[in-house]
Amino acid sequence: MKILLIGGTGTIGSVLTDRLKDDHELIIVGHSSGDLQTDITDPKAIQSLFKEVGTIDAVIVTTGSAPIKPLKELTNDDFIEGVKSKMMGQINVALTALDYLNDGGSITLTTGILSHDPIPQGTILSTVNNAVNGFVIGSYGEFMQHGIRINAVSPALVEDSAEALGDYFPGHTPAKMKHVANGYIKSLQTLITGQIIDID
Amino acid sequence: MKILLIGGTGTIGSVLTDRLKDDHELIIVGHSSGDLQTDITDPKAIQSLFKEVGTIDAVIVTTGSAPIKPLKELTNDDFIEGVKSKMMGQINVALTALDYLNDGGSITLTTGILSHDPIPQGTILSTVNNAVNGFVIGSYGEFMQHGIRINAVSPALVEDSAEALGDYFPGHTPAKMKHVANGYIKSLQTLITGQIIDID
Repeated sequence: MKILLIGGTGTIGSVLTDRLKDDHELIIVGHSSGDLQTDITDPKAIQSLFKEVGTIDAVIVTTGSAPIKPLKELTNDDFIEGVKSKMMGQINVALTALDYLNDGGSITLTTGILSHDPIPQGTILSTVNNAVNGFVIGSYGEFMQHGIRINAVSPALVEDSAEALGDYFPGHTPAKMKHVANGYIKSLQTLITGQIIDID
Repeated sequence: MKILLIGGTGTIGSVLTDRLKDDHELIIVGHSSGDLQTDITDPKAIQSLFKEVGTIDAVIVTTGSAPIKPLKELTNDDFIEGVKSKMMGQINVALTALDYLNDGGSITLTTGILSHDPIPQGTILSTVNNAVNGFVIGSYGEFMQHGIRINAVSPALVEDSAEALGDYFPGHTPAKMKHVANGYIKSLQTLITGQIIDID
């Protein structure tokens, strides 16, 4: 398969790259490294990326961020930062992919455990993760009419981020990187659609 | 209780007004009618509203919209329209309310069945409804630390909208208005928090 992996240079993306590279044609997209670069907060940059890449069999997004901040300090602007990146960044990739995916193609987005298992200061991540889950649930039927599947992988705190982020996730058991990668493989190579694939 | 009801002139809001008006001091807010007016898509207008009203015991939001449109036609701008109204409109009310709610106060937002039970052309509503559910789930712990509860009522297609909107919801059984109002009463008068109250 020809697979566009947006965020392929990140924590999850680089593990996934190792799992996929021998069996597939991978195009790794990063913000400043990788085969190609894009800025997922800019819908026009996403369109240019797809125009450059042309038709593909699958797109996987493993990037997108949102501020972690106490509720009392949160402003509309803080939310919009997360909306533009982790929420609309991923949604705009999916909308654009509709014109570039071959029949039988798939889209796999990344959300996360905070959608249903909150941490202090994690309100924006809970909001935007759940938004992307809602997008998958709301859109899969119409994607199916165009011959395309869509799922989200929703991992727990991942092992390779546990040292850097573990203090924000008291009592959370990190998910093994191999299990996280399995979630993307499942979305890519089974026929499921409209699913939120929880990886605990 | 002194209750700020934003959207009190709408389909759900007017039924709720009838249920609450004899027992509570209600301040009905509409876009162009009601006791006071606001534009929930404008964070500054929300701040002015609260400044005018002063301290309250509860705020209920029964307003907010998002475009209904085929997936193939959806753009970033369409999503942002729903983000500004049904998503950030309600979230900004909740964030602002933090400074105006008395101890033991409550916030009740409105989402809807499309978060988990999708219809054709309903992608944006599924997205923003789930975003607001995620906000409730992500924030309730910190609201609790400030002595405030927060819940969302998530109704099915409501009876009083069935004639106008029923064609978009094939096979959906409308929820009785009395049951919908019960959801808001439950959020207002029990001690639950962080809940998505489904009304089928």
